[in-house]
Amino acid sequence: MWSEDSALTVFNTPVNERTKMATANRNPEIRKDAVNNRLVILSPARSRRPSDFKSKSQAKSDSNPSSNAQPQCPFCAGNEHQCAPEIFRMPADSTSDWKVRVIENLYPALSRDSQVKSDNEEYCHANGTAGEVSLGGFGFHDVIIESPVHSVHLPDLSPSGIAVVLLAYKKRIEQLCAIDSINYVQVFKNHGASAGASMSHSHSQILALPIIPSIASTRLNSMKEHYNQTGKCVICNIHTDKFLIDESTHFVSISPFASTFPFETWIVPRYHSSHYHELDEDKAIDLGGLLKLTLQKLSIQLNDPPYNFMIHTSPLKVAASQFPYTHWYIQIVPQLSTIGGFEMGTGCYINPVFPEDAAKILREVEVSTTE
Amino acid sequence: MWSEDSALTVFNTPVNERTKMATANRNPEIRKDAVNNRLVILSPARSRRPSDFKSKSQAKSDSNPSSNAQPQCPFCAGNEHQCAPEIFRMPADSTSDWKVRVIENLYPALSRDSQVKSDNEEYCHANGTAGEVSLGGFGFHDVIIESPVHSVHLPDLSPSGIAVVLLAYKKRIEQLCAIDSINYVQVFKNHGASAGASMSHSHSQILALPIIPSIASTRLNSMKEHYNQTGKCVICNIHTDKFLIDESTHFVSISPFASTFPFETWIVPRYHSSHYHELDEDKAIDLGGLLKLTLQKLSIQLNDPPYNFMIHTSPLKVAASQFPYTHWYIQIVPQLSTIGGFEMGTGCYINPVFPEDAAKILREVEVSTTE
Repeated sequence: MWSEDSALTVFNTPVNERTKMATANRNPEIRKDAVNNRLVILSPARSRRPSDFKSKSQAKSDSNPSSNAQPQCPFCAGNEHQCAPEIFRMPADSTSDWKVRVIENLYPALSRDSQVKSDNEEYCHANGTAGEVSLGGFGFHDVIIESPVHSVHLPDLSPSGIAVVLLAYKKRIEQLCAIDSINYVQVFKNHGASAGASMSHSHSQILALPIIPSIASTRLNSMKEHYNQTGKCVICNIHTDKFLIDESTHFVSISPFASTFPFETWIVPRYHSSHYHELDEDKAIDLGGLLKLTLQKLSIQLNDPPYNFMIHTSPLKVAASQFPYTHWYIQIVPQLSTIGGFEMGTGCYINPVFPEDAAKILREVEVSTTE
Repeated sequence: MWSEDSALTVFNTPVNERTKMATANRNPEIRKDAVNNRLVILSPARSRRPSDFKSKSQAKSDSNPSSNAQPQCPFCAGNEHQCAPEIFRMPADSTSDWKVRVIENLYPALSRDSQVKSDNEEYCHANGTAGEVSLGGFGFHDVIIESPVHSVHLPDLSPSGIAVVLLAYKKRIEQLCAIDSINYVQVFKNHGASAGASMSHSHSQILALPIIPSIASTRLNSMKEHYNQTGKCVICNIHTDKFLIDESTHFVSISPFASTFPFETWIVPRYHSSHYHELDEDKAIDLGGLLKLTLQKLSIQLNDPPYNFMIHTSPLKVAASQFPYTHWYIQIVPQLSTIGGFEMGTGCYINPVFPEDAAKILREVEVSTTE
């Protein structure tokens, strides 16, 4: 047997039989994500294709294998002088015993130079009719070093250790909020080279933007539409029955109804909240515990895949009238597949795993509680 | 020197010095694509980051190295019996001397079963308030085998050889147009495993959808807005001065003003046309020549990268009133980078190469004309 080429190459990370079995015999289905107004094709048949290409490796084998302090790694304790300027550390008064450092990115995507900001005016070409608009690339691009130790990854930390990272995001967002022309912040983490990481030491990033990116504005419009139709926040209203993975005091982890990627997982506050940076210390520890459990389960079930997570918060300057329908959440995406021309061309993804099957599998993964 | 982790890992394919020099000292800029209403961050600094991960390989080294007829490859002449049913071949009356075959995909993303079609009704969950909508996954997923010979890739064909492939797309789209519930067709090609290909034998795909995917509907709205504001089609109006790469009788190749990816290239008809399938034989040969030249230039300049191309046509059932502002084009994307959490979270890409620099480089690439 053979296969044609793929819109999406699925499972190029080694996965176990149970994961493969999740792609049971079902008819394909097109689902719409009511939060993001996004379509997905759920299509189990795609996962049965063989390939004549070599498969990719998992996250850890991509990275530098030695696991202790790395003389060449600027993120390791002791190498702070190799980094771009520090913004703050936690605890604030720590010296060599810091837990988390927030620093400038030495190769930032945007410029924090206020000259670039003042150049921000509409740009039109010679004939002025092509509708082309350009702004100076003003913004902030920071790095959150999640641990002083090279070999410690985020889920290796305790719930309160992860809470320090989560509260560092909060503190930095609050600082960025105070800057007039910053309208949106994207917190994200890339784990593993094929998820976009170029450094193996555990860290995440914040990009603060003068514009509201399209996914955020589409989400805002979609949430508004749902609220206008039903009088309810679409995320408060989200289904947790067969899509539930785990729950904590203040959060649930779910496989979303219209998962774009296999084993995509959302962590959603059970309380209504527009902005991530409303998180308090108590909730941060609770979230730390559920994030740890979720990342552990994905690692066990999917053989330590590369992954991304993104915090989807509301634009910083939304009006109070928008608060009833905007609700932040975290999206975690294990990188099991390659994006092809179909996805790039349409924005519609093909996911071979029905989210209710992914949720069932992840619900049942047992995690050792030795820590 | 070192780098922080990336929103985007750039140039993980080996590239030459001239390509690296394209990322000159410029300030970052945020540009808006007036065709797709999409933002991009042009940020040269990102390309200077080193990485402690191993780099990826190029397209050809991913694939099966032997280059002649492959007993295991169902796309090779002589192995037709290993394939799913054939839809047609070109020339129509050929036997073992076919040039192009259009076949069903054995592992289709959508089902051509009319039962799935008749099941297409709105789906609501038990409590009916979550805004969740699902359709049966009815549609067509076909494969276009571009050559009977395993080692022949698309740009190895002559302009009129490529025209046979282009006319096969046209013929298949015309057939799909006749099906009531099909509203959009996406033609695409994945070349190389990291561009989503699972088979190395040269081929492309067509997915025919019952829905209009988000990128197409956003493009349609954006084109309409431009037309309403200026009275002109945004693509007829596109700038070709410093963004021009090459031109033929009926087409131009350009680096678009707000290129999402480094060295992204568009091939645009110089005549106004809403639908790809309006292409005639004369124009197909002309397009074949420019597509060949463009793929050759990208291969020479970027060291045979994996790539995708997508034909962006109009929805099949657009009204005649929409014709003045809808205009098809081809988007070619060499896969030089990895998508990270920032891009997934925001839909906004970070491109280290200014398109005017990419255009200049590609304009100057010399292609041997021995064929």
